[in-house]
Amino acid sequence: MKITFLWMGKTTEHWLQEGIDVYVKRLKHYISLSVEIIPSPKNLPKQDVGQQKEIEGDAILSRITSSDEVYLLDECGMAYSSEGLAEFLQKKMSASVKHLVLVTGGPFGFSEKVYRRANGEISFSQLTFSHQMIRLLVSEQVYRAFTILRGESYHHQ
Amino acid sequence: MKITFLWMGKTTEHWLQEGIDVYVKRLKHYISLSVEIIPSPKNLPKQDVGQQKEIEGDAILSRITSSDEVYLLDECGMAYSSEGLAEFLQKKMSASVKHLVLVTGGPFGFSEKVYRRANGEISFSQLTFSHQMIRLLVSEQVYRAFTILRGESYHHQ
Repeated sequence: MKITFLWMGKTTEHWLQEGIDVYVKRLKHYISLSVEIIPSPKNLPKQDVGQQKEIEGDAILSRITSSDEVYLLDECGMAYSSEGLAEFLQKKMSASVKHLVLVTGGPFGFSEKVYRRANGEISFSQLTFSHQMIRLLVSEQVYRAFTILRGESYHHQ
Repeated sequence: MKITFLWMGKTTEHWLQEGIDVYVKRLKHYISLSVEIIPSPKNLPKQDVGQQKEIEGDAILSRITSSDEVYLLDECGMAYSSEGLAEFLQKKMSASVKHLVLVTGGPFGFSEKVYRRANGEISFSQLTFSHQMIRLLVSEQVYRAFTILRGESYHHQ
Protein backbone atom coordinates (compact mmCIF):
# COMPACT_ATOMS: atom_id res chain seq x y z
CA MET A 1 0.00 0.00 0.00
CA LYS A 2 1.04 3.55 -0.71
CA ILE A 3 -0.11 6.44 1.49
CA THR A 4 -0.49 10.03 0.35
CA PHE A 5 -1.02 12.93 2.74
CA LEU A 6 -2.99 15.46 0.71
CA TRP A 7 -2.84 18.91 2.31
CA MET A 8 -4.59 22.12 1.38
CA GLY A 9 -2.16 25.03 1.47
CA LYS A 10 1.44 25.41 2.56
CA THR A 11 2.50 24.89 6.16
CA THR A 12 3.49 28.40 7.15
CA GLU A 13 4.99 27.87 10.63
CA HIS A 14 8.56 26.65 10.27
CA TRP A 15 8.57 24.83 13.64
CA LEU A 16 5.47 22.93 12.55
CA GLN A 17 7.08 22.03 9.24
CA GLU A 18 10.14 20.82 11.10
CA GLY A 19 8.04 18.55 13.31
CA ILE A 20 6.11 17.19 10.34
CA ASP A 21 9.39 16.49 8.53
CA VAL A 22 10.62 14.45 11.51
CA TYR A 23 7.66 12.05 11.40
CA VAL A 24 7.33 11.94 7.61
CA LYS A 25 11.00 10.97 7.35
CA ARG A 26 10.57 8.24 9.96
CA LEU A 27 7.38 6.98 8.31
CA LYS A 28 9.15 6.46 5.01
CA HIS A 29 11.09 3.63 6.63
CA TYR A 30 7.78 1.78 7.05
CA ILE A 31 5.72 2.56 3.98
CA SER A 32 5.75 4.30 0.63
CA LEU A 33 4.55 7.77 1.55
CA SER A 34 4.18 11.00 -0.33
CA VAL A 35 3.04 14.42 0.80
CA GLU A 36 1.12 16.47 -1.76
CA ILE A 37 0.42 20.10 -1.05
CA ILE A 38 -2.33 21.86 -2.99
CA PRO A 39 -1.69 25.60 -3.29
CA SER A 40 -4.38 27.67 -1.56
CA PRO A 41 -6.65 29.46 -4.04
CA LYS A 42 -5.57 33.07 -4.49
CA ASN A 43 -7.45 36.32 -5.02
CA LEU A 44 -10.77 35.10 -3.66
CA PRO A 45 -13.28 37.63 -2.39
CA LYS A 46 -12.68 37.84 1.36
CA GLN A 47 -15.08 35.90 3.55
CA ASP A 48 -16.63 33.98 0.67
CA VAL A 49 -16.30 30.72 2.53
CA GLY A 50 -18.62 28.75 0.27
CA GLN A 51 -16.70 29.64 -2.88
CA GLN A 52 -13.38 28.92 -1.21
CA LYS A 53 -14.54 25.48 -0.10
CA GLU A 54 -15.80 24.70 -3.62
CA ILE A 55 -12.54 25.71 -5.30
CA GLU A 56 -10.46 23.89 -2.71
CA GLY A 57 -12.74 20.85 -3.03
CA ASP A 58 -12.35 20.70 -6.80
CA ALA A 59 -8.58 20.97 -6.39
CA ILE A 60 -8.63 18.07 -3.92
CA LEU A 61 -10.77 15.94 -6.24
CA SER A 62 -8.47 16.63 -9.18
CA ARG A 63 -5.66 14.90 -7.27
CA ILE A 64 -7.69 11.77 -6.56
CA THR A 65 -8.20 8.84 -8.93
CA SER A 66 -11.24 6.58 -8.91
CA SER A 67 -9.40 3.64 -7.37
CA ASP A 68 -7.99 5.62 -4.41
CA GLU A 69 -9.29 5.04 -0.90
CA VAL A 70 -9.87 8.51 0.47
CA TYR A 71 -10.29 9.48 4.13
CA LEU A 72 -10.87 13.01 5.35
CA LEU A 73 -9.55 14.35 8.64
CA ASP A 74 -12.73 15.83 10.01
CA GLU A 75 -13.98 16.71 13.49
CA CYS A 76 -17.22 14.81 12.86
CA GLY A 77 -15.48 11.64 11.73
CA MET A 78 -14.81 8.34 13.42
CA ALA A 79 -12.66 8.66 16.56
CA TYR A 80 -9.95 6.05 16.96
CA SER A 81 -7.50 5.19 19.69
CA SER A 82 -3.91 4.93 18.47
CA GLU A 83 -4.28 1.13 18.50
CA GLY A 84 -7.55 1.50 16.59
CA LEU A 85 -5.88 3.64 13.95
CA ALA A 86 -3.15 1.02 13.61
CA GLU A 87 -5.84 -1.64 13.11
CA PHE A 88 -7.58 0.58 10.53
CA LEU A 89 -4.33 0.80 8.54
CA GLN A 90 -3.70 -2.93 8.91
CA LYS A 91 -7.18 -3.69 7.55
CA LYS A 92 -6.55 -1.47 4.52
CA MET A 93 -3.30 -3.30 3.82
CA SER A 94 -4.94 -6.69 4.32
CA ALA A 95 -7.72 -5.68 1.91
CA SER A 96 -5.01 -4.95 -0.68
CA VAL A 97 -5.79 -1.26 -0.89
CA LYS A 98 -3.26 0.13 -3.34
CA HIS A 99 -3.41 3.80 -2.45
CA LEU A 100 -4.74 5.35 0.73
CA VAL A 101 -5.17 9.13 0.64
CA LEU A 102 -5.50 11.02 3.93
CA VAL A 103 -6.80 14.51 3.29
CA THR A 104 -6.60 17.55 5.57
CA GLY A 105 -8.66 20.44 4.25
CA GLY A 106 -8.35 24.19 4.41
CA PRO A 107 -9.43 26.39 7.32
CA PHE A 108 -13.14 26.02 6.47
CA GLY A 109 -13.25 22.28 5.93
CA PHE A 110 -14.47 20.32 2.92
CA SER A 111 -17.06 20.91 0.21
CA GLU A 112 -20.02 18.58 -0.18
CA LYS A 113 -18.49 17.07 -3.32
CA VAL A 114 -15.42 16.03 -1.34
CA TYR A 115 -17.56 14.43 1.37
CA ARG A 116 -19.49 12.51 -1.28
CA ARG A 117 -16.31 11.17 -2.90
CA ALA A 118 -14.58 10.21 0.34
CA ASN A 119 -14.67 6.67 1.68
CA GLY A 120 -14.91 7.97 5.22
CA GLU A 121 -13.90 10.55 7.80
CA ILE A 122 -11.51 10.26 10.71
CA SER A 123 -11.64 12.52 13.76
CA PHE A 124 -8.53 13.11 15.84
CA SER A 125 -10.22 15.03 18.64
CA GLN A 126 -13.42 16.77 19.65
CA LEU A 127 -11.21 19.84 19.97
CA THR A 128 -10.67 22.03 16.95
CA PHE A 129 -7.04 22.14 15.92
CA SER A 130 -5.81 24.44 13.20
CA HIS A 131 -5.75 22.80 9.76
CA GLN A 132 -1.96 23.16 9.88
CA MET A 133 -1.51 21.65 13.34
CA ILE A 134 -3.57 18.62 12.34
CA ARG A 135 -0.85 17.73 9.80
CA LEU A 136 1.65 17.28 12.59
CA LEU A 137 -0.83 15.11 14.50
CA VAL A 138 -1.56 12.96 11.43
CA SER A 139 2.13 12.48 10.68
CA GLU A 140 2.88 11.50 14.26
CA GLN A 141 -0.12 9.21 14.64
CA VAL A 142 0.41 7.35 11.37
CA TYR A 143 4.06 6.89 12.34
CA ARG A 144 2.93 5.71 15.78
CA ALA A 145 0.47 3.29 14.13
CA PHE A 146 3.25 1.62 12.16
CA THR A 147 5.41 1.26 15.26
CA ILE A 148 2.41 -0.38 16.97
CA LEU A 149 1.92 -2.79 14.06
CA ARG A 150 5.63 -3.70 14.23
CA GLY A 151 5.54 -4.12 18.00
CA GLU A 152 8.14 -1.41 18.49
CA SER A 153 8.55 0.51 21.71
CA TYR A 154 7.82 4.08 20.52
CA HIS A 155 4.15 3.90 21.56
CA HIS A 156 5.06 3.22 25.19
CA GLN A 157 7.98 5.56 25.52
CA MET B 1 -7.26 33.64 37.95
CA LYS B 2 -3.71 32.49 37.40
CA ILE B 3 -2.91 29.40 35.31
CA THR B 4 0.13 27.20 35.73
CA PHE B 5 1.16 24.56 33.21
CA LEU B 6 2.99 21.95 35.27
CA TRP B 7 5.08 19.66 33.09
CA MET B 8 7.10 16.60 33.92
CA GLY B 9 10.52 16.73 32.26
CA LYS B 10 12.11 19.06 29.77
CA THR B 11 10.77 19.43 26.24
CA THR B 12 13.58 17.90 24.22
CA GLU B 13 12.50 18.64 20.63
CA HIS B 14 13.45 22.21 19.79
CA TRP B 15 10.68 22.61 17.16
CA LEU B 16 8.13 21.56 19.77
CA GLN B 17 9.57 24.05 22.26
CA GLU B 18 9.36 26.75 19.63
CA GLY B 19 5.69 26.00 18.96
CA ILE B 20 4.90 25.95 22.68
CA ASP B 21 6.68 29.28 23.11
CA VAL B 22 4.49 30.83 20.40
CA TYR B 23 1.23 29.99 22.19
CA VAL B 24 2.52 30.60 25.73
CA LYS B 25 3.66 34.06 24.68
CA ARG B 26 0.28 34.83 23.09
CA LEU B 27 -1.57 33.44 26.11
CA LYS B 28 0.21 35.81 28.45
CA HIS B 29 -1.71 38.67 26.81
CA TYR B 30 -4.92 37.12 28.16
CA ILE B 31 -4.07 35.70 31.55
CA SER B 32 -1.37 35.40 34.17
CA LEU B 33 0.36 32.21 33.11
CA SER B 34 3.45 30.38 34.25
CA VAL B 35 5.08 27.22 32.99
CA GLU B 36 6.76 25.05 35.62
CA ILE B 37 8.94 22.19 34.51
CA ILE B 38 9.76 19.42 36.96
CA PRO B 39 13.09 17.74 36.19
CA SER B 40 12.67 14.06 35.30
CA PRO B 41 13.96 11.77 38.04
CA LYS B 42 17.47 10.55 37.27
CA ASN B 43 19.28 7.26 37.79
CA LEU B 44 16.17 5.14 38.17
CA PRO B 45 16.40 1.41 37.49
CA LYS B 46 15.33 0.99 33.88
CA GLN B 47 11.78 -0.17 33.31
CA ASP B 48 10.70 0.36 36.88
CA VAL B 49 7.57 2.14 35.77
CA GLY B 50 5.83 2.00 39.14
CA GLN B 51 8.72 3.60 40.99
CA GLN B 52 9.12 6.27 38.32
CA LYS B 53 5.44 7.19 38.52
CA GLU B 54 5.64 7.42 42.33
CA ILE B 55 8.70 9.68 42.31
CA GLU B 56 7.23 11.84 39.55
CA GLY B 57 3.91 11.96 41.38
CA ASP B 58 5.52 13.13 44.62
CA ALA B 59 7.39 15.81 42.70
CA ILE B 60 4.11 16.99 41.12
CA LEU B 61 2.36 17.07 44.50
CA SER B 62 5.20 19.06 46.06
CA ARG B 63 4.46 21.88 43.58
CA ILE B 64 0.76 22.02 44.43
CA THR B 65 -0.80 23.87 47.36
CA SER B 66 -4.04 22.85 49.04
CA SER B 67 -6.04 25.73 47.53
CA ASP B 68 -5.02 25.01 43.92
CA GLU B 69 -7.52 23.62 41.43
CA VAL B 70 -5.66 20.80 39.71
CA TYR B 71 -6.59 19.15 36.41
CA LEU B 72 -4.63 16.33 34.82
CA LEU B 73 -4.27 15.87 31.09
CA ASP B 74 -5.22 12.24 30.83
CA GLU B 75 -6.54 10.01 28.04
CA CYS B 76 -9.35 8.78 30.30
CA GLY B 77 -10.51 12.25 31.29
CA MET B 78 -13.42 14.38 30.19
CA ALA B 79 -13.39 15.20 26.47
CA TYR B 80 -14.26 18.78 25.57
CA SER B 81 -14.82 20.61 22.34
CA SER B 82 -12.77 23.81 22.04
CA GLU B 83 -15.91 25.78 22.95
CA GLY B 84 -16.46 23.43 25.90
CA LEU B 85 -12.91 24.00 27.12
CA ALA B 86 -13.47 27.75 26.88
CA GLU B 87 -16.64 27.35 28.95
CA PHE B 88 -14.74 25.22 31.49
CA LEU B 89 -12.18 28.03 31.92
CA GLN B 90 -14.91 30.67 32.11
CA LYS B 91 -16.64 28.70 34.87
CA LYS B 92 -13.41 28.50 36.86
CA MET B 93 -12.94 32.25 36.56
CA SER B 94 -16.59 32.90 37.49
CA ALA B 95 -16.17 30.64 40.53
CA SER B 96 -13.25 32.85 41.61
CA VAL B 97 -10.70 30.08 41.34
CA LYS B 98 -7.38 31.73 42.23
CA HIS B 99 -4.98 29.24 40.72
CA LEU B 100 -5.71 26.61 38.09
CA VAL B 101 -2.96 24.04 37.55
CA LEU B 102 -2.99 21.98 34.35
CA VAL B 103 -0.64 19.02 34.72
CA THR B 104 0.89 16.89 31.97
CA GLY B 105 2.65 13.85 33.35
CA GLY B 106 5.64 11.82 32.30
CA PRO B 107 5.65 9.06 29.68
CA PHE B 108 3.89 6.58 31.98
CA GLY B 109 1.16 8.83 33.32
CA PHE B 110 0.24 9.68 36.90
CA SER B 111 0.55 7.89 40.23
CA GLU B 112 -2.56 7.05 42.24
CA LYS B 113 -1.69 9.80 44.74
CA VAL B 114 -1.82 12.40 41.98
CA TYR B 115 -5.19 11.12 40.74
CA ARG B 116 -6.55 11.33 44.29
CA ARG B 117 -5.38 14.92 44.75
CA ALA B 118 -6.60 16.17 41.38
CA ASN B 119 -9.93 17.94 40.95
CA GLY B 120 -10.46 16.24 37.61
CA GLU B 121 -9.00 14.93 34.38
CA ILE B 122 -9.23 16.36 30.89
CA SER B 123 -8.77 14.26 27.75
CA PHE B 124 -7.63 15.88 24.53
CA SER B 125 -8.11 12.84 22.31
CA GLN B 126 -8.72 9.11 22.32
CA LEU B 127 -5.40 8.93 20.51
CA THR B 128 -2.21 8.68 22.52
CA PHE B 129 0.07 11.63 21.95
CA SER B 130 3.54 11.79 23.39
CA HIS B 131 3.69 13.53 26.77
CA GLN B 132 5.76 16.23 25.08
CA MET B 133 3.41 16.76 22.14
CA ILE B 134 0.47 17.17 24.50
CA ARG B 135 2.13 20.34 25.85
CA LEU B 136 1.87 21.97 22.44
CA LEU B 137 -1.78 20.95 22.20
CA VAL B 138 -2.57 22.30 25.68
CA SER B 139 -0.83 25.60 24.97
CA GLU B 140 -2.66 26.02 21.67
CA GLN B 141 -6.06 24.99 23.03
CA VAL B 142 -5.93 27.19 26.13
CA TYR B 143 -4.88 30.08 23.88
CA ARG B 144 -7.75 29.19 21.52
CA ALA B 145 -10.15 29.07 24.48
CA PHE B 146 -9.31 32.64 25.48
CA THR B 147 -9.78 33.88 21.91
CA ILE B 148 -13.20 32.17 21.94
CA LEU B 149 -14.12 33.85 25.23
CA ARG B 150 -13.09 37.23 23.78
CA GLY B 151 -14.99 36.61 20.53
CA GLU B 152 -11.81 36.90 18.49
CA SER B 153 -11.42 35.39 15.05
CA TYR B 154 -8.53 32.95 15.65
CA HIS B 155 -10.87 30.01 16.25
CA HIS B 156 -12.39 30.32 12.78
CA GLN B 157 -9.27 31.12 10.84
